[in-house]
Amino acid sequence: MATFKFSGPAKRLRIFVGEGHKYKNMPLYHALVLKAKELDMAGATVTKGIEGFGGHSRIVTSRIVDISSDLPVVVEIVDSVEYIEKYLQEIDGMIKEGLITLDDVEIIKYSSLEGERLKRIKKENQSEPDKK
Amino acid sequence: MATFKFSGPAKRLRIFVGEGHKYKNMPLYHALVLKAKELDMAGATVTKGIEGFGGHSRIVTSRIVDISSDLPVVVEIVDSVEYIEKYLQEIDGMIKEGLITLDDVEIIKYSSLEGERLKRIKKENQSEPDKK
Amino acid sequence: MATFKFSGPAKRLRIFVGEGHKYKNMPLYHALVLKAKELDMAGATVTKGIEGFGGHSRIVTSRIVDISSDLPVVVEIVDSVEYIEKYLQEIDGMIKEGLITLDDVEIIKYSSLEGERLKRIKKENQSEPDKK
Repeated sequence: MATFKFSGPAKRLRIFVGEGHKYKNMPLYHALVLKAKELDMAGATVTKGIEGFGGHSRIVTSRIVDISSDLPVVVEIVDSVEYIEKYLQEIDGMIKEGLITLDDVEIIKYSSLEGERLKRIKKENQSEPDKK
Repeated sequence: MATFKFSGPAKRLRIFVGEGHKYKNMPLYHALVLKAKELDMAGATVTKGIEGFGGHSRIVTSRIVDISSDLPVVVEIVDSVEYIEKYLQEIDGMIKEGLITLDDVEIIKYSSLEGERLKRIKKENQSEPDKK
Repeated sequence: MATFKFSGPAKRLRIFVGEGHKYKNMPLYHALVLKAKELDMAGATVTKGIEGFGGHSRIVTSRIVDISSDLPVVVEIVDSVEYIEKYLQEIDGMIKEGLITLDDVEIIKYSSLEGERLKRIKKENQSEPDKK
């Protein structure tokens, strides 16, 4: 199985919400992943924290069972500027309490796919120099 | 319940320590969260690793029970430059072994609060253009 | 026990692969940590996600037992540019499906060691201003 490799600039998005936050009867973090999939984003990774505080002022921790129901989760997505901006517009109404961070990264992507998604990213990266 | 949204520049702080590190008879990572709360920081998120190595040279992993007692934990805090700098001064004596990374991010914050904390961040972001 | 502190610029590497990915009969993420150790990198931290999608298009989640076998894992390494570049060359053949992000950070390192590793990093940071 051949592996394709390419690299270039990208945007990183990290979304901090509570594990217990809901959107239309499902966990909000799951709805955020589904939306990324629906928009054909390159990927998404959800990580769960063991302690934290945020919009709410209470500290929640997995060490104390009673108040561990709203532990922080982080949804991380790395994609092109265009896809990240479109995604941000789509999720704007979904989050009531939360923090999003955005920053620039360089990426190296290894993939065995030569499907539409890979072609898209390749094409974008190839045309990237023209935009600057 | 109304949701307020605002955006602007911020600093991201990630602190890597061992899960078993102590500060005054409590887990160090918890002491770092308490300090962030005490200083009225906007939030903190603690994530636990499943494997790693650092100041110590031994690799610890959750796959081997015997040496999993000092797995890495990461405390992530995103706030204004002023609050991050004050926080760094306060925790300077708390960490004996560990790594801190600092970098710039753009944030989008969703909140149902219009309390003092939100006013503080709004005010700072509004005055941000003046500083440049 | 004395604590040494130093700060300076560094590179952050985050490698996203599947928990179930293998390299020579061991988990790929573990092989990536071993390689970092072998090259005397300053540290590595592995975090496991609870949900995600990536090179593959299927969403995997820890909430559904059947398809949780390939949850995302992230290997994070922070070190000098030279060490990160050498590491990237070494792991180039190990990853078939995955994403690597690279970006610049400022670090503050606390250590009780005054071993070879600490001397290396101190020396690099001291010589850093000369390069600019």
